[in-house]
Amino acid sequence: MATAGPAAAARHHEGEGTYVESRSGTAVSGPAPAEPVSVPALLARARTLCTPPLRAAVAGLVAPMDTVAAYHFGWIDRDGTPVSGDSGKAVRPALAVLSAQAVGAPAQAGVPGGVAVELVHNFSLLHDDLMDGDETRRHRATAWTVFGPAQAILVGDALATLGTEVLLDAAVSGGADAVDAARAVRLLTTATRRLIDGQAQDLSFEHRDVVTVEECLEMEGNKTGALLAAASAVGAVLAGADDRVADALQRYGHHLGLAFQAVDDLLGIWGATEVTGKPHWGDLRQRKKSLPVAAALAEGGAASRRLAAQLADPQGRGEESEQVLAARAALIEEAGGRAWTQGEARRQHKTALAALDEVPMADAVREHFVALAEFVVVRER
Amino acid sequence: MATAGPAAAARHHEGEGTYVESRSGTAVSGPAPAEPVSVPALLARARTLCTPPLRAAVAGLVAPMDTVAAYHFGWIDRDGTPVSGDSGKAVRPALAVLSAQAVGAPAQAGVPGGVAVELVHNFSLLHDDLMDGDETRRHRATAWTVFGPAQAILVGDALATLGTEVLLDAAVSGGADAVDAARAVRLLTTATRRLIDGQAQDLSFEHRDVVTVEECLEMEGNKTGALLAAASAVGAVLAGADDRVADALQRYGHHLGLAFQAVDDLLGIWGATEVTGKPHWGDLRQRKKSLPVAAALAEGGAASRRLAAQLADPQGRGEESEQVLAARAALIEEAGGRAWTQGEARRQHKTALAALDEVPMADAVREHFVALAEFVVVRER
Repeated sequence: MATAGPAAAARHHEGEGTYVESRSGTAVSGPAPAEPVSVPALLARARTLCTPPLRAAVAGLVAPMDTVAAYHFGWIDRDGTPVSGDSGKAVRPALAVLSAQAVGAPAQAGVPGGVAVELVHNFSLLHDDLMDGDETRRHRATAWTVFGPAQAILVGDALATLGTEVLLDAAVSGGADAVDAARAVRLLTTATRRLIDGQAQDLSFEHRDVVTVEECLEMEGNKTGALLAAASAVGAVLAGADDRVADALQRYGHHLGLAFQAVDDLLGIWGATEVTGKPHWGDLRQRKKSLPVAAALAEGGAASRRLAAQLADPQGRGEESEQVLAARAALIEEAGGRAWTQGEARRQHKTALAALDEVPMADAVREHFVALAEFVVVRER
Repeated sequence: MATAGPAAAARHHEGEGTYVESRSGTAVSGPAPAEPVSVPALLARARTLCTPPLRAAVAGLVAPMDTVAAYHFGWIDRDGTPVSGDSGKAVRPALAVLSAQAVGAPAQAGVPGGVAVELVHNFSLLHDDLMDGDETRRHRATAWTVFGPAQAILVGDALATLGTEVLLDAAVSGGADAVDAARAVRLLTTATRRLIDGQAQDLSFEHRDVVTVEECLEMEGNKTGALLAAASAVGAVLAGADDRVADALQRYGHHLGLAFQAVDDLLGIWGATEVTGKPHWGDLRQRKKSLPVAAALAEGGAASRRLAAQLADPQGRGEESEQVLAARAALIEEAGGRAWTQGEARRQHKTALAALDEVPMADAVREHFVALAEFVVVRER
């Protein structure tokens, strides 16, 4: 991993996930905080604030949708027994809560936004897992495999709708202004539509041998950037932020999403299965048009041309051996796809932090945004 | 059909659909208008007003969702050739437009509401057809059978989201107040959640032998009443109606929806296939827990008990012959299920008109609401 600094290399084993330098390696923006920000504490705070209203919203669903949703969120197992499992990282709720603090409001003002983006995120997971035929997520059987496709469709629909209701309720009982609640609904609805656009593009890519880097970035901007953009601004909007601030926070989230997705694409090929919870070489087996593949195909050299020939060959599609897939991963790396995507994650990370600099906010809040961004791009799963 | 007046009998053939008296037979409310209201003209006006913005919204979807949606709406065939087919009755857009006029606003003020309810209605059709495994709708192959389940899920999601966007846009470019647009979004979102609740209840009924009349009415209130309630008030809300007026208009739509669904349940058993476009005895073949069945089971006499025994018998489920199903329909009628449901349609129709009487409005507008209500309950498909 030629691009990783020594500090990062010391923290992570080769091939297990350090795709961009950690902040200690490069100091991307501003002076280092006196005390390091604890991202786990930030995420735990977001969960403490957002999980109770999230669970209350989900508990209000008509049976058996409440059970299906609780299973999907990792709160119960398939027999209904409560479990304290992995409910996801809570990055989106943490951003929503921080965005309220960015404009001087209490963290609490961002909570309806955090709950709403988490609901929309999980709507898209439920539907995407079914559409993509994915059978596991976070080391567990996906909801559609346990409760059937109809329940996955229905509960996804219900969560998306609840997201809007939670934001509208923020104006009724949460202290938000009615017009600000409507602006937050607009933010979330636009993000939801772009999520759907991104999934449509992703599905359409399956029928093609080649996807350009630009097309791939557009798809990922919709599928991942849009909701992180909404998460990074929704709390501020609920607290009455003006459009200029909301726009800058959205740009931070959008570019953070693109950085996140670049890392995800790297993990989809080179991530350790036991850490990511995803099948080994899964993205290559599905011939997914991710950024490393698109970048490798665009490079045009010998390895790039061999990769293109392999991907154009319908033979063996979906049945390739581990060896064939490992060789393909090496080909992508040889054609520069891995390095380009690592660079892209760094560039998007930097652009996100630059957008943040446009918004005046308390130093402590800014440091939290910076720490979350680093957490998103320096990760193993 | 003992309950139908002579005028209605003259207009409809026995067994083809007259389930409640036509207005000329019973004069349910107020004096007869000097000139009969032309419902086809009302519906045509709603289509003229709402179809262009509806098509514009759908055309903005990312490919291939635009094509899938256009097929679903009946605007193109599966090869993409434009067709002028049956796009549905446009009752919901007609109600939305009328509801703006009810508060003295121009019909145009209700158009975003008409477009939005039509989008949400078609979201639910796309998803319900897939969940229910229905292969035809309006005499055509359902979208999921033509484009696959993933596209049906995705396009349904997109239409639901577009519905909210169209209402929010009404505040940006349609002249609506931002707070009124947010109230309209709330109205539509609540209706969407209840639609989903209703579908969840409908699906859960499939696993049961007996459903009470009350449970059936609750399910139908969610699945059909909620969106007709929203349609009947959304234009008024966009035009700034107060809560009292919006509430009365919603009650009109809710009870109209229950009347509509009672008629639908009757048509699902006794409707003529060539008119409804649905398979003969389809509801009985699926052992659907519709109102006539629930009412017949509640009656408790000899025919009712024989019906209960048949429905509790897992043998032959889904494979019953035409003769067996015809005998079952006769049993439901003998146990009073048909007559009770006809009466229920009349009662709900009457309650809807009573709610309408609470709202002061121009006579011409009221007559249109009354005519639409009669159209909904006196129909063959």
